Amino acid sequence: MIDYNPKAWFTFIFRFHKGDTVRKLSPMFLGLSIYSAAVAYIEMDFFKLKADSELKNIVIVHTLLGFVISMLLVFRTNTAYDRWWEGRKHWGALVNNSRNLAIKLSAMLPANTTSREYFRLMVPNYAFALKNHLRMNFIGGELETVPGFTVDTTKHVPNQIAAHILAHIHELYRQQQISGEQLLSVNHELQAFTDICGACERIRNTPIPFSYSVFIKKFIFFYVMTLPLGYVFTVGYLIIPVVVFVFYVLASLELIAEEIEDPFGFDANDLPTDTISANIRKHVAEIL
Amino acid sequence: MIDYNPKAWFTFIFRFHKGDTVRKLSPMFLGLSIYSAAVAYIEMDFFKLKADSELKNIVIVHTLLGFVISMLLVFRTNTAYDRWWEGRKHWGALVNNSRNLAIKLSAMLPANTTSREYFRLMVPNYAFALKNHLRMNFIGGELETVPGFTVDTTKHVPNQIAAHILAHIHELYRQQQISGEQLLSVNHELQAFTDICGACERIRNTPIPFSYSVFIKKFIFFYVMTLPLGYVFTVGYLIIPVVVFVFYVLASLELIAEEIEDPFGFDANDLPTDTISANIRKHVAEIL
Amino acid sequence: MIDYNPKAWFTFIFRFHKGDTVRKLSPMFLGLSIYSAAVAYIEMDFFKLKADSELKNIVIVHTLLGFVISMLLVFRTNTAYDRWWEGRKHWGALVNNSRNLAIKLSAMLPANTTSREYFRLMVPNYAFALKNHLRMNFIGGELETVPGFTVDTTKHVPNQIAAHILAHIHELYRQQQISGEQLLSVNHELQAFTDICGACERIRNTPIPFSYSVFIKKFIFFYVMTLPLGYVFTVGYLIIPVVVFVFYVLASLELIAEEIEDPFGFDANDLPTDTISANIRKHVAEIL
Amino acid sequence: MIDYNPKAWFTFIFRFHKGDTVRKLSPMFLGLSIYSAAVAYIEMDFFKLKADSELKNIVIVHTLLGFVISMLLVFRTNTAYDRWWEGRKHWGALVNNSRNLAIKLSAMLPANTTSREYFRLMVPNYAFALKNHLRMNFIGGELETVPGFTVDTTKHVPNQIAAHILAHIHELYRQQQISGEQLLSVNHELQAFTDICGACERIRNTPIPFSYSVFIKKFIFFYVMTLPLGYVFTVGYLIIPVVVFVFYVLASLELIAEEIEDPFGFDANDLPTDTISANIRKHVAEIL
Amino acid sequence: MIDYNPKAWFTFIFRFHKGDTVRKLSPMFLGLSIYSAAVAYIEMDFFKLKADSELKNIVIVHTLLGFVISMLLVFRTNTAYDRWWEGRKHWGALVNNSRNLAIKLSAMLPANTTSREYFRLMVPNYAFALKNHLRMNFIGGELETVPGFTVDTTKHVPNQIAAHILAHIHELYRQQQISGEQLLSVNHELQAFTDICGACERIRNTPIPFSYSVFIKKFIFFYVMTLPLGYVFTVGYLIIPVVVFVFYVLASLELIAEEIEDPFGFDANDLPTDTISANIRKHVAEIL
Repeated sequence: MIDYNPKAWFTFIFRFHKGDTVRKLSPMFLGLSIYSAAVAYIEMDFFKLKADSELKNIVIVHTLLGFVISMLLVFRTNTAYDRWWEGRKHWGALVNNSRNLAIKLSAMLPANTTSREYFRLMVPNYAFALKNHLRMNFIGGELETVPGFTVDTTKHVPNQIAAHILAHIHELYRQQQISGEQLLSVNHELQAFTDICGACERIRNTPIPFSYSVFIKKFIFFYVMTLPLGYVFTVGYLIIPVVVFVFYVLASLELIAEEIEDPFGFDANDLPTDTISANIRKHVAEIL
Repeated sequence: MIDYNPKAWFTFIFRFHKGDTVRKLSPMFLGLSIYSAAVAYIEMDFFKLKADSELKNIVIVHTLLGFVISMLLVFRTNTAYDRWWEGRKHWGALVNNSRNLAIKLSAMLPANTTSREYFRLMVPNYAFALKNHLRMNFIGGELETVPGFTVDTTKHVPNQIAAHILAHIHELYRQQQISGEQLLSVNHELQAFTDICGACERIRNTPIPFSYSVFIKKFIFFYVMTLPLGYVFTVGYLIIPVVVFVFYVLASLELIAEEIEDPFGFDANDLPTDTISANIRKHVAEIL
Repeated sequence: MIDYNPKAWFTFIFRFHKGDTVRKLSPMFLGLSIYSAAVAYIEMDFFKLKADSELKNIVIVHTLLGFVISMLLVFRTNTAYDRWWEGRKHWGALVNNSRNLAIKLSAMLPANTTSREYFRLMVPNYAFALKNHLRMNFIGGELETVPGFTVDTTKHVPNQIAAHILAHIHELYRQQQISGEQLLSVNHELQAFTDICGACERIRNTPIPFSYSVFIKKFIFFYVMTLPLGYVFTVGYLIIPVVVFVFYVLASLELIAEEIEDPFGFDANDLPTDTISANIRKHVAEIL
Repeated sequence: MIDYNPKAWFTFIFRFHKGDTVRKLSPMFLGLSIYSAAVAYIEMDFFKLKADSELKNIVIVHTLLGFVISMLLVFRTNTAYDRWWEGRKHWGALVNNSRNLAIKLSAMLPANTTSREYFRLMVPNYAFALKNHLRMNFIGGELETVPGFTVDTTKHVPNQIAAHILAHIHELYRQQQISGEQLLSVNHELQAFTDICGACERIRNTPIPFSYSVFIKKFIFFYVMTLPLGYVFTVGYLIIPVVVFVFYVLASLELIAEEIEDPFGFDANDLPTDTISANIRKHVAEIL
Repeated sequence: MIDYNPKAWFTFIFRFHKGDTVRKLSPMFLGLSIYSAAVAYIEMDFFKLKADSELKNIVIVHTLLGFVISMLLVFRTNTAYDRWWEGRKHWGALVNNSRNLAIKLSAMLPANTTSREYFRLMVPNYAFALKNHLRMNFIGGELETVPGFTVDTTKHVPNQIAAHILAHIHELYRQQQISGEQLLSVNHELQAFTDICGACERIRNTPIPFSYSVFIKKFIFFYVMTLPLGYVFTVGYLIIPVVVFVFYVLASLELIAEEIEDPFGFDANDLPTDTISANIRKHVAEIL
């Protein structure tokens, strides 16, 4: 995620940051300029169509449907943003649960036991394992070595860590180091890890339905490609910047939505899961 | 569900996938083309109505109501998408609860007991039974055979599996193999199965209110059928692609909404419940 | 609730079902036609106002406010639909809680006890009592006779059933037929009954604020009544179908919203609470 | 809250109820009529500006921004309605929790004990105290006298009642009249009282951010005041009803939103907290 | 947060409060006036372009995209408001949990113990520590001195307070001053502190995705800067107030959104966390 000051207007307007849609779309801008110029030339200079041509009135399509395309793009924007924000909430919940688990275990376990040490290392491991799991890779070096725990990378890694933590807690309970009520009082945090993992997997694996994705792209394409046909008669060669600007606006919304709807990767707008994981490790170490 | 790369724009625009609304609507496109051509012929060439005909101004209806129809379609899209996404969330919760139950039972039960074996087979059976139940069928072969459990297919199958699992847990509790606090700590997961089943049944059995469904279809029909009456005067025979394109946009939104509002079937955009069920079986087996 | 196939377009468009707004509004259509014809006659034939009359430009009101009225109707549609869907969710939760309670009690209680029999009869009684309570009536014949339970119809009926079930459970607990942890494990289901009842009462008793209801109706009325004043000059006697169609669209949305915002009655779009109650009885009997 | 039949259209349209925005805004209507007439006179009759004056085209502002103002008013409407509905939900939850607490205590406590009497009086007191607390007053006469409980009106009254009820419950637990599990089973209801109180205080104390409130009012003011400047040229003295009607629509939405965003007072649309409190007392008395 | 009477219309319209966007934007108003005047002079007086210039029709861009920009600003407004309101909800929950914890502990602990004293001082400390933590500073003087507790300002301060409170509770449990069920009954409140802290940190640290922030600013800039190019032909030098007003509206929405999306600072619209913290201290002292 790019860290930024949302109040620095002029920086935003004139610089073209990594992740700026202007950069990504510029080849398309060139193509569309050529296309629009060609349409303008053919209609005005080659066929010398007059301004009362019926083709001029084709613009009614853009008037009638301009509203629908806007609504669709806002629907797209809302759903993509909701996923991004839901992903952020789940990582926030991971922070909260890691902290709460550390705070509770710290209150339950005597100082300087091996179990304290175990949880200090193992709880933050979950965040790192989940972060990498969501990016479909495994970085062993990011996990703290914990005695008695080995990862089988062919299996679901976060599940193994969660299962190991839970087995440790129940072992403490069987040894009566923690009571039944204390076991119940950490139940919420323990099951939250797996719930968060499942929710993030759901967000990553489920883009908006295929039909919408196709439909929006087709709609933008036909809308923009037919734009010069009618408007050439009213704006002449000015159609070139008009088409480019309209395309810039519509395509940008679709592009940004595509980028943020899976928020766990390495895109410019993705969530800072590396930083969050490191913070969990830091705060858990402070507490336990 | 179709797995796709949402960033492959050009593939989307020019190919006509299974489930693409262009394929489904193409017979209607033909019909509408003929109708529009007929209207254009009758008004312009047969009656030779002049451009100052009052019929030309009928287009005010489309201007005044174009906004309402767009809003309605977005309402339709939002509610259908919400069901689809809610269904996805419930199946995600099924994954989470199956995993959490396996993780907790793994921590409670000694290695190599028949109960571990029982839960390893029985918990994933719930997902398969639910998947088929939501499609109104029963596939015995997808359920693992579990000693002591027989299905009565004339009754509600998921309920039988949930009841059998719960009875097994309470039996372990009566035999003091798990304690009262341990019983409480799996209570959430156990009741979640039936809650998820009920929520999915609710989504499947309750389309949007009949009146909205009728009203939207009538509205689209009259909107599109009256479109050529007035616009013929401004665009001539170009009315044919205009009507077809407007109809394509409006009808596509309704069609996609119809398809995704019951997300548990076999439609192109439906949820991958087969894959999810298989994953539950795989992950539970890894843990227990 | 009308059961229907949402994909049967042509049936929808040409048939006029019970609950179709066309049927309900047809007297108004007639009235508006006469009114519009009168306005057209007076302006065009009686006073022979010319097309450059200032009255013609009164249509700016409809342009400026057409958007506001659409937004308001969508707000109305959304809130009404949300109540309908929230009501459906509560009845879904009633199904889930009845099933879960039956599944849990089945696991706790020995076979063939009078308590099993008691819960098999009493739990579904709650759904039937609630259904009738929400319709402000009481149908004694729909409740199964349960030994030791008599209804006082002058008091809140669902509360009596819930209190009786809870008293039975606590009696079992005092007799140590169920343990403290088992008591806690059904706590959620037991309190859910009364929560659902209260939520449904809230939906039934609270229509949208009076001011909105009045405002929307006044707005639609003035919007439609002033429509012919200006548009007569552009469409002549075609104003009659135009006004009728615009009114049909605006009033339909308000009418449907009125119907579904209290979803527990006997309207065509109301929830199938009879069927749901019968299903609860059937499934609870299968389990217990 | 005004109780009304949402289907009585004609009553709504022609009567001007208490709380109707037409009544509240009528002085403004007069002022705006004079203003518009003055603008019309000055532009048309005094300066005799011609219809091709550049001032005529100032209407582009209203076209460009008409959409923004509508969106803003819908945003305003949605947030105000959400508070009103959230307030209603909290009072519904108060009903549910009072009933559930009564039902559970009824099952736990033997008949005819002083504790039953205590809770029968004290639980409904909370609703009455909260109702008055939210209106910033205290009506001692509405609280039932409970032996051993005196209110200190200089302190937070609902908190005192909640604390007294909780102290009573824990006292019963210390005397072993209720068990630990029974204590836990009423924990949710007991903490819900204070959660509901805090949520209602939040709604009452937090109107939408000051900047939005100011901005919307300024925007409506400038939008309406500049309306006659340009439109006088097209509609002449008909500008007077046009401006009044546009103002009526825009200001009504803001007025209604202001009224319902704090739903606990005595405004026409406020929630019927008196009735709800009385119902809680009635139903709790039926149960306990 | 500015405390205000939302019904005082005229005060709002004519005064320019601190935080009013008119004040913040006035330098930009001047710049835009000069720019618009320059464009008008160049087009009309220098080049003497005629009204049938193709440049005039460039306004189609503003018509086609006016809708998209409005939708985007409403999306922006909604998400910013949602954060502000979510932040307010979390602080409301902090109030509720502090009160509930005090009420429960008051019922559990005997009068005049050091533990009561401890919680009376320590629970409100959390609110003050969180308030300052969210503003990235630490004000030791606002924390009550509690025997046995020292803050390490290099570490996460709220976490230390939460951990200290939890350790104290578990110590009471080990000493059997509170029972296991009583420990469980305060579990929710204890973990809520850290959940609230994490949620507020999430809101503060996560503005809307960078790409949207950039895109909206670029879009407003180009939209406003191109506005005079075409509209000069229709409104002449009146373009100056038109451009300023359109910019005022669009930029105000973005400015207010920027201000409220991080609601924990010292901006005019930020939440009154100082007051809320003081209230928590007052109410907890009343109860314990």
